[in-house]
Amino acid sequence: MSYYTHHVFFCTNQREDGSECCQRFGALGLRDYAKQRCKELGLTGEGKVRINTAGCLDRCAEGPVMVVYPEAVWYSYVDQEDIDEIIEQHLTNGQVVERLRI
Amino acid sequence: MSYYTHHVFFCTNQREDGSECCQRFGALGLRDYAKQRCKELGLTGEGKVRINTAGCLDRCAEGPVMVVYPEAVWYSYVDQEDIDEIIEQHLTNGQVVERLRI
Repeated sequence: MSYYTHHVFFCTNQREDGSECCQRFGALGLRDYAKQRCKELGLTGEGKVRINTAGCLDRCAEGPVMVVYPEAVWYSYVDQEDIDEIIEQHLTNGQVVERLRI
Repeated sequence: MSYYTHHVFFCTNQREDGSECCQRFGALGLRDYAKQRCKELGLTGEGKVRINTAGCLDRCAEGPVMVVYPEAVWYSYVDQEDIDEIIEQHLTNGQVVERLRI
């Protein structure tokens, strides 16, 4: 069994040359929001959800991206509404948000 | 199918108060070594292996730790020899290194 039921990694890479990458599209702010929101909802901890920062996940053209393991589901998100949907539907109820999946 | 066959996350967190955590035990150097070694061996890329940095994975007492997804196998490692064993046995041949597993 997986230590975390849903282990989420946000790409928060920033390219040195300033070219397009996840961090330019609000990845840090939305990662903070997801962390905070999951905590408020009591979703976090062993056997539950963990939200993590990660370096470049190398899917830059599809960014900003996150990946949820162990189910290996990748998402591209735009705003807080997308994050809320992922938290409510996937992290709380275990159902993949197909419209955001890549 | 998982975008990466083995997606490895090294905890490289550093606590502000300087108390024990993964980064104090050489996590950064060994992550760099793993990244470099996997590249040399031609293991990296889509459908293969990806080595990533992550923030605190919250298993500090067992650190330094890494986790390999989607199989959700956690390791505690000490030195380059441990990393080599994980690369050769797990990331190359898909067999879990039981002696380092947590």
